[in-house]
Amino acid sequence: MRRVAVIGVGVTKFGRHDRSSGELFAEAAVEALADAELEPSAIQALYYGNVVGGETEKQLHCGPQAASILGITGVPTTRFETACASSHAAFRHAVMEVGAGISDIVMVGGGERVLNVPTEDSTEYFAYASDAIWEQPLGLTFPGVFALVARAHMHKHGTTEEQMAAVAVKNHRHGTLNPKAQFRKEITLEQVMTSAKVADPLKLYDCCPFSDGGAAVILASEDVARSRKRAVWVLGSSAASDWMLIGDKPDLSRVLATERAAAAAYRQAGLGPQDVDVVELHDCFTIAEIVATEGLGLFEPGMGGVAAEKGWTSLGGKVPVNPSGGLKAKGHPIGATGAAQVAEIVTQLRGEAGPRQVGGAKTGLVHTLGGNTATVVVSVLGRE
Amino acid sequence: MRRVAVIGVGVTKFGRHDRSSGELFAEAAVEALADAELEPSAIQALYYGNVVGGETEKQLHCGPQAASILGITGVPTTRFETACASSHAAFRHAVMEVGAGISDIVMVGGGERVLNVPTEDSTEYFAYASDAIWEQPLGLTFPGVFALVARAHMHKHGTTEEQMAAVAVKNHRHGTLNPKAQFRKEITLEQVMTSAKVADPLKLYDCCPFSDGGAAVILASEDVARSRKRAVWVLGSSAASDWMLIGDKPDLSRVLATERAAAAAYRQAGLGPQDVDVVELHDCFTIAEIVATEGLGLFEPGMGGVAAEKGWTSLGGKVPVNPSGGLKAKGHPIGATGAAQVAEIVTQLRGEAGPRQVGGAKTGLVHTLGGNTATVVVSVLGRE
Repeated sequence: MRRVAVIGVGVTKFGRHDRSSGELFAEAAVEALADAELEPSAIQALYYGNVVGGETEKQLHCGPQAASILGITGVPTTRFETACASSHAAFRHAVMEVGAGISDIVMVGGGERVLNVPTEDSTEYFAYASDAIWEQPLGLTFPGVFALVARAHMHKHGTTEEQMAAVAVKNHRHGTLNPKAQFRKEITLEQVMTSAKVADPLKLYDCCPFSDGGAAVILASEDVARSRKRAVWVLGSSAASDWMLIGDKPDLSRVLATERAAAAAYRQAGLGPQDVDVVELHDCFTIAEIVATEGLGLFEPGMGGVAAEKGWTSLGGKVPVNPSGGLKAKGHPIGATGAAQVAEIVTQLRGEAGPRQVGGAKTGLVHTLGGNTATVVVSVLGRE
Repeated sequence: MRRVAVIGVGVTKFGRHDRSSGELFAEAAVEALADAELEPSAIQALYYGNVVGGETEKQLHCGPQAASILGITGVPTTRFETACASSHAAFRHAVMEVGAGISDIVMVGGGERVLNVPTEDSTEYFAYASDAIWEQPLGLTFPGVFALVARAHMHKHGTTEEQMAAVAVKNHRHGTLNPKAQFRKEITLEQVMTSAKVADPLKLYDCCPFSDGGAAVILASEDVARSRKRAVWVLGSSAASDWMLIGDKPDLSRVLATERAAAAAYRQAGLGPQDVDVVELHDCFTIAEIVATEGLGLFEPGMGGVAAEKGWTSLGGKVPVNPSGGLKAKGHPIGATGAAQVAEIVTQLRGEAGPRQVGGAKTGLVHTLGGNTATVVVSVLGRE
């Protein structure tokens, strides 16, 4: 495998948009091309993430559509769908293409549009990422899944609702520093604790929003990237799965797919959690951030909630997590989320994150989860 | 890139099934594992194709579900969707993973279930592979798309409806020799010509059916495959796209994505169309086979219809095309089609195709098309 670098990134503002997912992707792609100082014609392949486009836009086969909107028809392109981890999965496979020497410059992108349909519909479509025969008929939508995870974690480790709320407060504070974030207002612990119950013990402010948005990153071979001062290197990128059914998982307080993918990504990078300076991880619900910080080895099992409460994961803390505001405040356009997380870590490692910059960050971690904790992709990025 | 081989294949019977797409895939996967003499635990990654599962089964995120059904949880898995070329796209990316040295044994599979919904619904869902903003509102479903292609080809080359009908007659004859085929009855030219009009000039027997089914193939590195007498080598695997919108394509009598993907695959293999002994190609409609034989360089532009009429593409002819019966008679469970085409060519190159065997076949070609001719994947396989 050749070395692979990220040489350009772009994201749209996340939130409500009156454009298709393909157009949102294209806006981000144009930004990424400008960032990389490349013409569209330089792109040799497009790896594209989208999740519920069939449901919300009646649009499948969106890879060549995205390529057409960008004017790069002819290139190989396919859509990757592994629930909320889709464009991070696309990223991992694109790293293989460049690493294997098949292409030198490849774009990874994603786009999603869901705010054009009622919330009850998008809630149902998101549930398609759980099992249609055994789980959906029970009414188990994603707040319910993560409420089960929260209860298991509270039972095993004594994690508190206040600790979960601290994640929301922190990510909203970070979001105020990100001009592309969907929510840019601080919230208080009391606001989280008194917000409406969604799925006990999760409350409204424990949940990320529905979002429209697009994201794109450009990968390049070492030969192309070597002369570029702002290149950020892909040190490792791994994926893992777990049982599809919640009922098949022996311990809901852990996400085994996170632990497996992280172990493989660290091994590839020759690094460990102690080397990580900044993290973007999958906080679809506040408990998901707590469990992920443990699964990634940043904190011991049971210490994820404590870490959030004590500010260890805040900007200025031991290991800043989700300086972008995370899914919670930046927003979560599911097909674009993975690529957007990569874009944030690249921005951090370049030292270009402005008021949300993690000082001196040299190594960053990206973690994206799909479905009922059944899919995880983890990548490790670093600057020279 | 390391050399990559196919060491196991499996397909279900295509047609109507009362099982989920994941279960259909698993049946094929078990057959492929037995064929490769491997336990499921040997599989290091699953590449999975599915197209309209969100619509017909309310099921997204089907990669880890398929892995769970097969009992190989933990492995990296993602769903690839590029319309009807989905599992061939998955195959191409899996070749990269093994070729790059990331894994030694990888499964590629696909499953699709559509006969559980009414035909008018599946027709609509398939149309999601065309553009939702500009094309679907016009009522352009896929028979309409290929009727336009047929008219363009007739106008430019004088191709006749009888020549198209000859493709259907030939593929039905081949299908009688395939125990897994959905249709195993011969039809006459007159039956095709007098069948009900679907989209002028295409008639019922010019169209492939809706099908349920699953398929799986197992890829291995050279080290693993070398000791296996029945290994079939992947000599080339390439993809290409074209403008998404029918209205943007300057010449509907050609499929530029086929021509681009074929040129790249031949280049990788160091071979040309004159070296091909047997072909499985995407005959979703009879005209699609004619255009594909030209785009793959098997016949000069305008000679595809003549070739069908004269029997050059029949078993026993110059270049047998679709000995399996093709999509037309074998059936077309869209997410499984590409993997099933690979399985047929592997079976042919091993000399294990029984009454439909192409004698002495050493080099085979697989061609799969997605959507409004906007995506094509082409692979070249060969035995030592």
